[in-house]
This record gives sequence, C-alpha cells and structure tokens, in this order.
Amino acid sequence: MEKLKKYISVKDEDQFYHQGAVELLVFNFLLILTILTIWLFKNHRFRFLHETGGAMLYGLVMGLIIQYATKASDVEGGTVYECEKLKSGRSTLLLNITNQVYEYQYKREVSHHNVNGHQGNAMLQKRHFFRNLGSILTYAFLGTAISCIIIGLIMYGFVKAMVHIGQLKEWEFHFTDCLFFGSLMSATDPVTVLAIFHELHVDTDLYTLLFGESVLNDAVAIVLTYSISIYSPKENPNTFDAAAFFQSVGNFLGIFAGSFAMGSSYAIVTALLTKFTKLCEFPMLETGLFFLLSWSAFLSAEAAGLTGIVAVLFCGVTQAHYTYNNLSPDSKMRTKQLFEFMNFLAENVIFCYMGLALFTFQNHIFNPFFIFGAFVAVFVARACNIYPLTFLLNLGRKQKIARNFQHMMMFSGLRGAIAFALAIQDTESQPKQMMFTTALLIVLFTVWVFGGGTTPMLTWLQIRVGVDPDEDLKAEAASQSASNPDKNTTKAESAWLFRIWYSFDHKYLKPILTHAGPPLTTTLPEWCNPVARLLTSPSAYEDQLKDDDTDYIINNDELTENYESSAHTPVWDRTGSTQATGKEDIHEGDLGLGGYKLQLEHTAHQPQMNSLA
Amino acid sequence: MEKLKKYISVKDEDQFYHQGAVELLVFNFLLILTILTIWLFKNHRFRFLHETGGAMLYGLVMGLIIQYATKASDVEGGTVYECEKLKSGRSTLLLNITNQVYEYQYKREVSHHNVNGHQGNAMLQKRHFFRNLGSILTYAFLGTAISCIIIGLIMYGFVKAMVHIGQLKEWEFHFTDCLFFGSLMSATDPVTVLAIFHELHVDTDLYTLLFGESVLNDAVAIVLTYSISIYSPKENPNTFDAAAFFQSVGNFLGIFAGSFAMGSSYAIVTALLTKFTKLCEFPMLETGLFFLLSWSAFLSAEAAGLTGIVAVLFCGVTQAHYTYNNLSPDSKMRTKQLFEFMNFLAENVIFCYMGLALFTFQNHIFNPFFIFGAFVAVFVARACNIYPLTFLLNLGRKQKIARNFQHMMMFSGLRGAIAFALAIQDTESQPKQMMFTTALLIVLFTVWVFGGGTTPMLTWLQIRVGVDPDEDLKAEAASQSASNPDKNTTKAESAWLFRIWYSFDHKYLKPILTHAGPPLTTTLPEWCNPVARLLTSPSAYEDQLKDDDTDYIINNDELTENYESSAHTPVWDRTGSTQATGKEDIHEGDLGLGGYKLQLEHTAHQPQMNSLA
Repeated sequence: MEKLKKYISVKDEDQFYHQGAVELLVFNFLLILTILTIWLFKNHRFRFLHETGGAMLYGLVMGLIIQYATKASDVEGGTVYECEKLKSGRSTLLLNITNQVYEYQYKREVSHHNVNGHQGNAMLQKRHFFRNLGSILTYAFLGTAISCIIIGLIMYGFVKAMVHIGQLKEWEFHFTDCLFFGSLMSATDPVTVLAIFHELHVDTDLYTLLFGESVLNDAVAIVLTYSISIYSPKENPNTFDAAAFFQSVGNFLGIFAGSFAMGSSYAIVTALLTKFTKLCEFPMLETGLFFLLSWSAFLSAEAAGLTGIVAVLFCGVTQAHYTYNNLSPDSKMRTKQLFEFMNFLAENVIFCYMGLALFTFQNHIFNPFFIFGAFVAVFVARACNIYPLTFLLNLGRKQKIARNFQHMMMFSGLRGAIAFALAIQDTESQPKQMMFTTALLIVLFTVWVFGGGTTPMLTWLQIRVGVDPDEDLKAEAASQSASNPDKNTTKAESAWLFRIWYSFDHKYLKPILTHAGPPLTTTLPEWCNPVARLLTSPSAYEDQLKDDDTDYIINNDELTENYESSAHTPVWDRTGSTQATGKEDIHEGDLGLGGYKLQLEHTAHQPQMNSLA
Repeated sequence: MEKLKKYISVKDEDQFYHQGAVELLVFNFLLILTILTIWLFKNHRFRFLHETGGAMLYGLVMGLIIQYATKASDVEGGTVYECEKLKSGRSTLLLNITNQVYEYQYKREVSHHNVNGHQGNAMLQKRHFFRNLGSILTYAFLGTAISCIIIGLIMYGFVKAMVHIGQLKEWEFHFTDCLFFGSLMSATDPVTVLAIFHELHVDTDLYTLLFGESVLNDAVAIVLTYSISIYSPKENPNTFDAAAFFQSVGNFLGIFAGSFAMGSSYAIVTALLTKFTKLCEFPMLETGLFFLLSWSAFLSAEAAGLTGIVAVLFCGVTQAHYTYNNLSPDSKMRTKQLFEFMNFLAENVIFCYMGLALFTFQNHIFNPFFIFGAFVAVFVARACNIYPLTFLLNLGRKQKIARNFQHMMMFSGLRGAIAFALAIQDTESQPKQMMFTTALLIVLFTVWVFGGGTTPMLTWLQIRVGVDPDEDLKAEAASQSASNPDKNTTKAESAWLFRIWYSFDHKYLKPILTHAGPPLTTTLPEWCNPVARLLTSPSAYEDQLKDDDTDYIINNDELTENYESSAHTPVWDRTGSTQATGKEDIHEGDLGLGGYKLQLEHTAHQPQMNSLA
C-alpha cells in the first residue's frame, strides 16, 4: 500500500519512508532483545541489572553501532539531515533514528508510562499511602523544592567557577538556568528500585514512602520546570525581579491546580458515564471509553496550556479509586491488562531510547567540570531533602522513620524518564545541550549503579524483605496492643487527614460516583433529597439490606475510626485490603478468618447505618 | 512538559502543537460519542446502523462543522497550510484535521485492523475455512482480478464518453488509471455484514465464504493496486506494452509471495522463540514479544519494498495457528484481548476518519458522471465476480452454493477501509482526486445502505439464522448418512486440499513449531533423527502416552481420512472444533457425547501411533 508512493517520481520521500521503516525496525529489534533478556534474567533470578538498565544498555550498544558504522554514509547521503530540515531546523527531537512521527508517539508514551504505573500500583498501595500521606506530601512538595534550590545553588557555584577559569562565558549561563537544571534533575524515578522492592516484598511503609514520593514528585518537578522556564525578569536575568518571581509562583500553583482539576474532571465524567449507562454489558466499550477519556484528559490539559502528564496522572489516580469500581469484572481485567501492557512497553521504549541517545544525539557537550558538579549537586540535594525533612517528620511521627530507611531513601534517589524527557525538550542552546548530556549521564549512572546495587544495599542496611503486608500489619497491631496500651497515638501522624478524607469520600464521593457506599439520601441534608435520589445508584438501597461489597467500605470507614481504640485490627486489615485490590487477594491471606469477618461486619454495619440516618 | 516549548519565542510551533492537541481531542470525542452510541444501539438491539456506519456519521457531521464553522479562520490564519508546507507540499495525507504524526499512526492501524480481525476469527472459522478453501481462493484471486478488469473497462468507457462531451482531456485519464481504480475498488470489506452474521449466527458456510473471500481479497487488491501503479509502458500509456505488462504480473507475484514469506517467517520465528524459551512464565513478556514481532513483520516488509499489510496479515494467520498455541493460558487471554481492543479502536478510528474526510478533504472533485459510472461498474463487477464463478464452482461442488447465498454474497460486496486507504495514498493529480472522492462516496453508500440492509435482506432471502455450527454439522452429517449412502463424495470439493495440508501440518509443522503433534522422530525419515530429536518438544513424547490435546489433533487427522467412509462424523466434528477454537467451546455442544468421544479417541489413537511408528 505504502508502495504507491513509488508511482510518483519523488525518490526522496520514498527513500525516507523506507529509512523510517528500517529505523523503527531496528528499535523494534532492540525491544525484542530486551524482552528476551528480561526473561533470561528473571529466569535466573538475576537482580543485579533491572530490565530498564538492560534496555538502556542495548540502546547504548545500538547507538554506538549506528554512530560509528553509518557515520560516513550519513554525511554523504544527507538523508537524515534532510529530515531535520523538514522540521525547519528546530531540534525538539534531534535523534536521527527517528522522525517527527516518532516524536509524537514518544511523548504520549511518557505520559502513559506515568499514569499506568501509578494506576496499577496506586490501588495496591492505597491504604499505606493514606497512612503516610503527610510524610509523602512533605517529601514531594517541600523535598522537591529543596532539591531544586540546592542543585541550582551548587550548579551556580560551579558555573561561576567555570566562568572564572574561562570555560564558560558569563552571559551564557544564568542563575535561572541553574534553577531550571535543578528542577528537572529533581524528578526522581525509582522504577528499578520499586520493582525490586515489589519482588522481594520489602517493608510496605518504606515502599509506600518511596512510591508516593516519586508519584507526586514527578508532577511537582514537571510543573516547577515549566514555571522556571517561563520566568522572565524584565532586566538583567541575574537580578531578582519580585514581580516576575511571584508570577512564576502563581504560574506554578495555577498550572498544578489546573492540571489536577482537569484530570479529576475527566475521571469524574468517566465515573458518571460508567455508572449511569449500563455499558458494563459490553466490556470492550467500557475499556475503550476508559482509555479514550483518560487520553482526552492529557490532550485537554495540553490544549489548555496546562501539563498533560500531571493531568493524566491525577486522572489515573481518580479513575483507579472510582471509575474502576464501576467496571464489570471482565472490563476490569481487560483495562488493567491493557494499561499494564502499555506501561511495560512504554517503559522499555523510553529506556532503550535513552541508551540510544547517548551516541546518536548529535550535539552532546561533555563538560567534565559541569558533569562532576552535577553529580555532587544531585547527591547533596538528595541528602538535604531526605535527612532534614525526615528529622522534622520524625518529630511529629510516633512510628519513626528509622535510620536505615532514611539511608535507603537517600540511595533510591534515581533519576529516570522524566528528567530525561524534561532535558530533551529544549536542546537549542549550548547550555541546554550541556544540561541534556549531563542529565543523560546521571540517569544512566543512577539506574545502573544504584538500581543494580539495590539488593546488596537492602542486605547491608538490614532492611527486612519477604514481608506479607497483611500479616505485617496484623502482627504489628497485635504487638502494639500487647506492649503499648497508648496505641491510639501510634497512627496519629496522618490519622486526622486520613479520617477526614475517608469520611468525605465515603459519604459523598463514592455514592455519587460509584454504585457503592450508603445512599445519598441518608448522607446529604434533607433538602437535597431530590438530587440525592437522582444520583444514588439503585443498588445502594439494596446493599443497605444485604451483606455486599459496600459493607466492606462501610466497615472500613467505621472500623478505621475504631481502629485506635478497639481490637478489630485484623478485620480492618482484611477489609481494607479487599477494597483496595479487588477480587484478587480474596483468595490470599487467612481464609480461616473469613466467617468471623463476615459476621463481624454484618453486626458492625447496622449501628452505623442508624447513626448516619 | 510540552510547555517548555514556550520558553523559546517561536510562537508558531507552540500554536501548532496546541492546535494538534485540540484536533486530536475533537477526534477523541468523536470516538467517545461513537462508543456511547454503539452501546445505545446494542442495548436496544438496533441492527439497522452498524457501529462503523455510526462512526462515519459522526465523522461526517463533525467534518461539516469543521468545514463551515472554521473555514474563515483557516484561510486567514494559514496555520494549517503551514503544516502542509513543512511536508514540502506533498499531499499523501491532505486532511487538515491531522498532521504528519497522525498519518503514521493511521497506517499502522489499518494494518492492525486487518491482522487482528482475521486473527481472532480465523481461529473460529478454521474448520469451515478449509472445507471451502477452493471456493474461497477462487473468489479471492480470480474474482478480484475479474472485478478489477470489469471496473477498469466500464470506467474506461465512461472516461471515453466524458472526453467526448468535453468533461475530461484525453491525456488526463489513461486505461491504466481506470485499472488502478478498478483494483482499489475491488477490495471488499464486509465488516458490517460479518458482524451481523456473527451476531445472528447465520449459516456458517455462508459466513466462511464471505469472510475468507474478504481476508484474501484485501491482500490481492492491495498488491494488484501497487503492481498497476508501477506499470510503466515505455511509450504511449494507452498502448499495450507486453514487456511492461509481464513485469507488472511478475511484480504482483513477487510482492505477494515475498510478503507472504516475510509474514510467515516472522510467525515461525515467534513460534520457535515461544516454544524453546520458557517465556510463558511471564505472560507480559510473551504478549510483548508477540506484539513486537508481528509489528516487525509489517516494518520489514515495508523496508524491503513489499506490502506490510499483506505481510502482517499472513503473519497473523500463522501466529494464530502455531504461536498462539505455545502461549501460556494467561498470555493467550492477554494477547487476544489486546488485539481485540486495538482492532475495535482502529476500526472506529478509520470509519470516523472516513466520515471526516468527506467534508474536510480540500481537493474533492465531485464529477456526477464519473461517480455514476463507478457505482454501475462496482455493481456490475460484483455480479460478474459472484454469479459466473459460483456457477463454475457449483459444477465441482456437491454441496452447491444456493441461489439465495449467491444473492447475499452479491449484496455483501461492501467497500471499506482498504479501498479508502488505497485511494487516499495518492491524491496529487486531478484524476486521482476524482477517484478518491468517488471511492469515498461508494464506501459511505455501501456501508450505510448495504450494511443497514443486511438484516432485512437475510429475511427476504430466507437465509436461516440462529445456527449452532456444531449442531448444524452433526445434523447435516446424520441426515446425509441416512439419506445418501454415497456421502463420501459430499465433501469431496476440497477434501484433497484439506487432507494434504492437514497431514503435512500435523506431521511436520505442528511438531516443529508447537508443543503439540506426534514426535518428529516418528514422522521424519530415520536419517533426520538428530535434528528431529532437537526440535521435538519434550511434552510431545509424554503426550504419546497420555490422553492429551495432541490426541485431538491426531484423531482429527486420522478421522478426517476416515470421514468419508465411516460413521465417526460426530466425533470428527467435536474434535475438529475443539482443535480450532481451543478451550472455549469445550463447554459448549453436546456434553452427553463427551464420554463416548474420549473413549473413541483413545482407541482410535493407538492404531495410528503404530502406523506412524
């Protein structure tokens, strides 16, 4: 079909198309090779090199081959440069392995990379996430800001020194450029570490702290980078311009809030659509709707001048919490597997691509001084983020974050896809090219060295592995109730946040957006009754009478409030986990507890219904 | 992230990017609307308008709005035309709703559209497919050639007449152009009709004839179109140049065979990879490999100057027959659902797109004379394809293709995605633009009118619906064995083809490429033993001893040979269908027969093993 182009005598385009197919094919083969290697590694339980590291390595080798084996013909034929001319000389994506076509693909995959990973895991980790919400928010917002400023300051010092020894010109590198570099290098991506944590069943609190930090930290870093990039003081770029500064801060808040709102709105629309249409009879349609509306969140945010990735991230989190529960069992599985697959593919695509970029990108500037500075800055900034903030958090937390956990968090400050993507956005000027090269090296180094060193590090820090989160929580609660009668302060850290949110979510959001929860007629004030009746799912009334899934949620809420002063912990734990992960782990855990649990729930359920009515 | 572009003061690109997001979003909303409408239709069992027709309708309405609501600003702002300039003025894709990015995406989806639909269905229809193989091949190859020539001749007549009345200039439209139009209009796409057939359980033979024809017919039409497009007689394009003609014929055969070989090779590689690695422990990796290798088949064919769609089509068919059986149950489901989803999405994307194209394509040439001629030509060519060929086939077939089946096949000659895609490839010259406009109108008309009229037509032609294929075949065989003792000639039509292929497939291909089948050591000559031992799956030896899946195949093969002279028909039927559709229909059909069947197979199995050894 494509060959019809040959009919027209314009040879160039045809050759260009073939070239495109060949290059895409090379990339495809890299991925296939990666997949086979992953299997080999998994098969031999070889954890030193994670699949992302492997993908990068293959990309690297292929890039080396492309660079040195085809250099001569490239320069002579000029086909590749012709392609760049077509893009009017702009180099948003300078890799000659790809064309404009591919660029688009690539951007979307970055976004999927985010939403999917988070979506899947968010469900599993929801309970621990809320328990540690305060700490996570602190690390993500305050920590990222600290990291950005520290890296910016250190780099500014290095830049000054470079100007002094004549390696750079004064006007080439401003303080805002240093902050820009600081913000993009603040996006951590511990995908490698988390994968190993997940596989080895590392302590769930540590997992959640790291996971939660990296989810929100990406969003913060992306918006921060953008805000800094549009900071434009009127006069000398090195002087402080208060108006421009506050405008940047305003931009940051506006874009963050806007993207959040955009993402959540789409999720709410999807939830309402899946709730009020009986679409669930046709799983394919549901999955299609879920996919398209999530993607629309990305596109809408981009079209509105917000950040698509952040929007799709929050859209995904909300979808996982509400919409996902409205889906039929069949579409739940389809949707989950579809996103899992796209996540898997996108992750390998981007890490392969990073490896390729090291040798095929044409405008690398390797400045050893700058690179050394960046490594120091990234290391110091991570330390200034983790240790002081943990010290402050531990003042408030009863369940302290232990020393070895802190070291592990320090160690897990890998840089990955987001830092790379932010750096490759702009490689026009020399400073930006220097930043890109440096960012790429830091990503490669951290993924290989820190990623590869995760397992030895866990052993060295004596962090326990093989933890069953259910058993863990049960044992913990039991030992606390035995040894510490004052245990109601143990979880106090984010209990108030947890309780307020859960109560609001359970009473209003769940009943509006899903089939679960108590009828709105019982939770909303009486004058809202007409609206409440319209929005309440018919099944909510039925569920009031029988022992259904909703009971889990009701109990969850109530038992959570009882958590600190009663002995119901095992039940709370079971129901919490059932709600979070759905059907799958209903077969896991202590089945002997099942009868007891159901009975207890049934009795616990009645008083609450009355108290709500 | 994307917003970083704003940092650079090039406003145009930023605006272009936003424009792109908005346009993609509009398209997204169209799809979401389509999905919701599909649900509404399905919910009300409303079969008059198939989802593809609905998708086109929405595209049409949106195109109308875009065309008339935004015309002024387009002309003034010029943003859209700027984009076309970037592509150096070539108009492989002139729709201003999209950019080069989208074009690429679109091509791939056409290819998925093909391979997936066929892959899923090919499994179900395999048995009937082989029974009707002779007829299907006749319709697909001979029928498509006839259709191409008839349309070409009729259009040439119309063109001559148009030249006569002064609507066209002699040199604008050659006979090869008419043949080109004939070949692209010969690709039938009865997706609408087949969907309804599937839903209503129309007679399986009719379904298979139509389905088989449309699968292979696409491949033939695509290669034919390409071959005609590169036919370049040295002198006057209207004179016959024997050398160039035979070169075109050679091209056709070469490209067809090459694409077939390329597709099958990839499938064989995938089969061997999935057989000899124990990848099946990690379903995601298997699915990834399956996906990437299938896509590589497309890319390789394109890179080699063959046709990617045809390669991926044959790759898909082979994957479904061999590789799919090597997958673990989990990846089988994942892979099937992934391709189903992509098929669903791609189908709706392309039909939406067609609707959009009617109003947003800038260079339509509506020539009523040409359009009228094309409608007549398509209709006449379909008649010249179906009726004479069926007459000839019926001479050889004992189980004749009935009159009402012929009318239904005539009626089901819809034109769809492939005709559209072939026509949009080249819209440079005025004749090509006229062809594109005409092809689009024919697609819209046939999908809406014939697609919508399928159910009334079935009633009018008194074609029975609600057929259970298993019961059907059983009843048929039973009635034949009662009324017609000479039944061994009933299936003779393609029994020899069927038998040769099945025997070869069962003895050599299945054991080499999958875990099923008898050990190669028993089927290959003795001197091949070392190789045979290497290639035979360990499970093949085990299966020799126990009653496993392989038995079905073995019996299938043996019973097929017995089919014409023994009373084992019901067993053949059950085992044949089990092999073709796998686990799913093991729960269907006559369960009372189960015990009998297994026992019979077990006894039937022993003698054959001996005869093979």
